[in-house]
Amino acid sequence: MSAPFWSSEPDELLRVGPDFRLRSVDPGSKPGTDADREAGRAELARASEELRELQQKLFAQSRTGARDRLLVVLQAMDAAGKGGIVNHVFGALEPYGLALAAFKAPSAEEREHDFLWRVEPRVPGPGVIGVFDRSHYEDVIVQRVRSLAPPEEIERRYEAIAEFERRIADDGVRIVKIMLHISPEEQAERLLARLDEPEKHWKYDPGDVDERLRWAEYMEAFQAAIDRTNAPHAPWFVVPADAKWYARVAVQRIVLSELHGIDPRWPAGDFDPEEQRSRVERTLDLRWP
Amino acid sequence: MSAPFWSSEPDELLRVGPDFRLRSVDPGSKPGTDADREAGRAELARASEELRELQQKLFAQSRTGARDRLLVVLQAMDAAGKGGIVNHVFGALEPYGLALAAFKAPSAEEREHDFLWRVEPRVPGPGVIGVFDRSHYEDVIVQRVRSLAPPEEIERRYEAIAEFERRIADDGVRIVKIMLHISPEEQAERLLARLDEPEKHWKYDPGDVDERLRWAEYMEAFQAAIDRTNAPHAPWFVVPADAKWYARVAVQRIVLSELHGIDPRWPAGDFDPEEQRSRVERTLDLRWP
Repeated sequence: MSAPFWSSEPDELLRVGPDFRLRSVDPGSKPGTDADREAGRAELARASEELRELQQKLFAQSRTGARDRLLVVLQAMDAAGKGGIVNHVFGALEPYGLALAAFKAPSAEEREHDFLWRVEPRVPGPGVIGVFDRSHYEDVIVQRVRSLAPPEEIERRYEAIAEFERRIADDGVRIVKIMLHISPEEQAERLLARLDEPEKHWKYDPGDVDERLRWAEYMEAFQAAIDRTNAPHAPWFVVPADAKWYARVAVQRIVLSELHGIDPRWPAGDFDPEEQRSRVERTLDLRWP
Repeated sequence: MSAPFWSSEPDELLRVGPDFRLRSVDPGSKPGTDADREAGRAELARASEELRELQQKLFAQSRTGARDRLLVVLQAMDAAGKGGIVNHVFGALEPYGLALAAFKAPSAEEREHDFLWRVEPRVPGPGVIGVFDRSHYEDVIVQRVRSLAPPEEIERRYEAIAEFERRIADDGVRIVKIMLHISPEEQAERLLARLDEPEKHWKYDPGDVDERLRWAEYMEAFQAAIDRTNAPHAPWFVVPADAKWYARVAVQRIVLSELHGIDPRWPAGDFDPEEQRSRVERTLDLRWP
């Protein structure tokens, strides 16, 4: 019997608590495990099966009225690995029960409305795992750093987000908010790697360098957003992300923990199986043409 | 060197041609291959890699303005395997480039509008592979069989569908329409299997037996829909589906063929890589905190 992959639960280790300081989190650390990359890949594959079965049950039970669903919010600096999390963790799920929303800079029409106007329709329906690749937190992070909204508007938004998340949580949405935390050194390596490979050029945006130069301001904005919106019904998790494999298994484990918390069950049918069996059996001689 | 999995291209063998008769298609046949189920599974896994790379390129090139995208319409009798196709063929794709729309019986609001009103917003955007699990064809198949719309309205809809598909094809949407064709005998076995396993009860709907009893009328409605809407820019494929493994690899191969037809390419960036490399390198000493 080999040692378990996790020596402590990342769900507990990475959850933001009182007096949380972002600067105390080492992006290169791997809380909860001493395993290496190869073991991480094996764990990712193993736990994908567990995740898929829970998702199937979550989706199935929604067909008979259960309202539970999960919303995973992903926020990070550029090149921190959001895309890899979506592809490698959530890509293992069945398409029926997954709803991905990738939020870009708001369109002209979206800017005409309140910042939550475009978010509300993307909240997952019953039985579905929703994933936000960027989210309404852009409206208090990049908009704060780039002064795209005045300070009093940013203040208003923290309150609006807290009320919004409270409301959807009351309607059955489990909310998990994840910051993938990379170091500026690791980001530089990843940006250079994108420039090295022509197949990755489409992922490179020259504007990412401009944002990179405001690193300290971004970290302040993340810290403020976390301070203002962390709540038991909508907790933040800060996941060290310099090692891609670690970030993936850690996010996967956090999601698994939430799904186990929901504890979805295969629903019973609202019919008598024996009666239905007889009905089908009476049609066994049906042929076509 | 082992024999190739496909001896003839299913894209050609299963494509509906002139004088097509549904009753001539054997749901238990496996056109284009002599392989068995185990080889089918291996082929599905192999070709999934090919599919994923094409999808990545399709998505990537849309970021720089290419408008190509693919719409796959799945229609079938109950228990014919649509869900398995979605999970096992399209589930292999990256979530970013996949948009699944599962159409149920129309809501009260949807019934207030023209039948294409709910379909238009689900047409995939550039770079995306859209999959319709049921579609606007329900409006000329189940609605015809169940007399939910008068014959002249069904007539109008055939024309409306042809115009709709012509228009979106002109805008860059490749359309592939697939009927999964099972036999009534195979359907009975699958319905009984759902009743055998409590974990599958949620998939069983007593109404499926009522529809089953109208098999001949459904086949007439499929034949009419195919006759009226088959077009070079929006072809129908009828896929024998009594063997699930065959239907999966056949649909996968048809989709691959369409993607090869688009021939997506990694897009070049609209920047000078050397200049960007220098910009990033000038920030290499950035540290935080």
